[in-house]
Amino acid sequence: MKKLITEFIGTFFLVLTVGLAVLGGGDSVGITAPIAIGVALMVMVYAGGHISGGHYNPAVTLGVLIRGKISLADSIGYWIVQLIASAAAAIVAMFLLGDKVPGDAAAMASTTNGLIAEFLGTFALVFVVLNSATAKGTEGNSFYGLAIGFTVTAMAYALGGYSGGAFNPGVGLGMSVMHMADWADFWVYLVGGLAGGAVAAFVFLTCNKDDK
Amino acid sequence: MKKLITEFIGTFFLVLTVGLAVLGGGDSVGITAPIAIGVALMVMVYAGGHISGGHYNPAVTLGVLIRGKISLADSIGYWIVQLIASAAAAIVAMFLLGDKVPGDAAAMASTTNGLIAEFLGTFALVFVVLNSATAKGTEGNSFYGLAIGFTVTAMAYALGGYSGGAFNPGVGLGMSVMHMADWADFWVYLVGGLAGGAVAAFVFLTCNKDDK
Amino acid sequence: MKKLITEFIGTFFLVLTVGLAVLGGGDSVGITAPIAIGVALMVMVYAGGHISGGHYNPAVTLGVLIRGKISLADSIGYWIVQLIASAAAAIVAMFLLGDKVPGDAAAMASTTNGLIAEFLGTFALVFVVLNSATAKGTEGNSFYGLAIGFTVTAMAYALGGYSGGAFNPGVGLGMSVMHMADWADFWVYLVGGLAGGAVAAFVFLTCNKDDK
Amino acid sequence: MKKLITEFIGTFFLVLTVGLAVLGGGDSVGITAPIAIGVALMVMVYAGGHISGGHYNPAVTLGVLIRGKISLADSIGYWIVQLIASAAAAIVAMFLLGDKVPGDAAAMASTTNGLIAEFLGTFALVFVVLNSATAKGTEGNSFYGLAIGFTVTAMAYALGGYSGGAFNPGVGLGMSVMHMADWADFWVYLVGGLAGGAVAAFVFLTCNKDDK
Repeated sequence: MKKLITEFIGTFFLVLTVGLAVLGGGDSVGITAPIAIGVALMVMVYAGGHISGGHYNPAVTLGVLIRGKISLADSIGYWIVQLIASAAAAIVAMFLLGDKVPGDAAAMASTTNGLIAEFLGTFALVFVVLNSATAKGTEGNSFYGLAIGFTVTAMAYALGGYSGGAFNPGVGLGMSVMHMADWADFWVYLVGGLAGGAVAAFVFLTCNKDDK
Repeated sequence: MKKLITEFIGTFFLVLTVGLAVLGGGDSVGITAPIAIGVALMVMVYAGGHISGGHYNPAVTLGVLIRGKISLADSIGYWIVQLIASAAAAIVAMFLLGDKVPGDAAAMASTTNGLIAEFLGTFALVFVVLNSATAKGTEGNSFYGLAIGFTVTAMAYALGGYSGGAFNPGVGLGMSVMHMADWADFWVYLVGGLAGGAVAAFVFLTCNKDDK
Repeated sequence: MKKLITEFIGTFFLVLTVGLAVLGGGDSVGITAPIAIGVALMVMVYAGGHISGGHYNPAVTLGVLIRGKISLADSIGYWIVQLIASAAAAIVAMFLLGDKVPGDAAAMASTTNGLIAEFLGTFALVFVVLNSATAKGTEGNSFYGLAIGFTVTAMAYALGGYSGGAFNPGVGLGMSVMHMADWADFWVYLVGGLAGGAVAAFVFLTCNKDDK
Repeated sequence: MKKLITEFIGTFFLVLTVGLAVLGGGDSVGITAPIAIGVALMVMVYAGGHISGGHYNPAVTLGVLIRGKISLADSIGYWIVQLIASAAAAIVAMFLLGDKVPGDAAAMASTTNGLIAEFLGTFALVFVVLNSATAKGTEGNSFYGLAIGFTVTAMAYALGGYSGGAFNPGVGLGMSVMHMADWADFWVYLVGGLAGGAVAAFVFLTCNKDDK
């Protein structure tokens, strides 16, 4: 139960920051939003990592499941809570934003590019998560939250223009609720994110064969 | 005594940075102020955490009191010093700023939104403080200052537009003195901040039952 | 093999971020690109450092070779993979960027200044790498990725205007492929970078005589 | 000798970054320079801290001398090398900057404000240095470079407008050489910086009485 509360809180503040920092970000949103969002993830990973692992992302939970550090039963609970928290955060953000929420979401210019962007960004994120937070070779470090949060910052600057830069199907859900993304493109976040997370987990297992 | 000196210094530099970085920040204040303020908090937490705990915030002290890591008598001393330091920093900032201090403070567009913003931001901050600096599961880490300071950065980018982004009744006091906030809205910082800190402490206790 | 996979992944995401954050960065590229690139390096060093050392840079590999922490045979493998990964990332970035890739690369205004910039920046980078990741006096620290990645951030802000700020012959190769740098200037990245890395290694050995 | 080489390198790259990031920083210098400069200090502290202590600043050396962690004889060597490195970096920066170096330096608008700014900023810096890098209560941490470097970032955003934000007489010397500051104001960096560092050391000793 305490794990699910923690996943709720972390995911809630991540998606809240996505909505408020982007839609309420004004002219400098291209500069500030990747920092705000990466930092929000970082601080929530540092706050909740010791309780729930600090996933806050269905693709991360999938990667950790493949890596063998969470059971399928627990994963299902995490996924449900992550999606509920994402939707709840989107609703709170919309209340605060008021008429800054656009009436319609723009479709992605290219879903091929969007899919590549979500795949690459989520691959990087889950590769960093598994290596910095679950590998024997980095045990006991103090940098895991910094590494995980700022992966989203770097990937958002690089890839955000092609997919919106969710790298997280829960964030993709929240973005769709808040009209930051078109529902017709939601599958891009789901497929790109989960595929990126799964592939990252297999690469991790190949590169860390002695970790159990 | 050394604890109170440390709380004075940390709160002083935090509120000084709030005033100078916002009112003296020019056109790029929306980009730079959340970084400057979060970083100022981070470095003062790293400098003074081992002496006083590095609260610099009445809402943090309330959260630590509920969590059972400070006595009520010590808390009262902390609160008094934090408020004195905030006022002192505001006066020094006003001296340096000269006519950059506005004659009148604008009232919050919506105190409902302001209250939600202060509650959420302070909840996040105290949740991060208690987990990264007082939990058994994160003992001995080197990241607590980074996590604590950058929570303010993320929340200021996300929520600063609704309440000014104090997340700290002492900062709220300093902002009121410097005409960055209307005295008529001061209760928002007090109520939102203390409620956020208290709720965060109860959630922490629920999620960390074995910590004493 | 797992070392070469890791070097491939880290170098790939570093060069991908260079291309996408610079050529796709719009008006604020001078603010955001040095952060995005330094952060991309940081997170990949934290993810892969425990497997391959996290070089992602032929000049770093040269420095580590001179310092005696990698064999010549392994270095050659690293160099080949770093260059392949750089070219691969450049191709993926060009696919996503489409017509944002310029038709022609501008030549450096001054190759003398470019050479000084690449030498100084790579010297700083390899000096930081060797001291933070291979010295006895800093063993077991959690800051090596932060120090290494942000050296590129600082040096890019300071020196990027003179050479483009690669500090890495692999990045120089990727920049040349993506028309961010003129092929006629490629020797600047090679000579400046490798010389900076080699000199840094000799200075390191002078300053850490008891380290073996 | 290795300590002096390290102090030379660290101070050189710090002052080089000050010159190039400010005078070559273009329109966004108010956003980027405090980050570039703080980060340059951070990475050099992480690289050289285990060799020389990573002072790179006569005011820091004074504070460490008062705190009793360096001898007067060693301090004199540090001071001489720090000033030589500052001048050398200024000359290299001027070579690269060419006609971006202004012909004349503007005098400070108010030397009173400048003196307050240098005193407060250097006090904060030396207070953070002594607590994060020389106190028993924070021994073995990985955050000292982050805390030290980013103190300059925060103070530069807050106080840079009043004094130029050196917080370091060596940087003040370099700024004077590069026409970023008027020679007639050099005493402000010297007096404000050394006084701030000395007072910080006495406050540190008061707050850490059991540290020897």
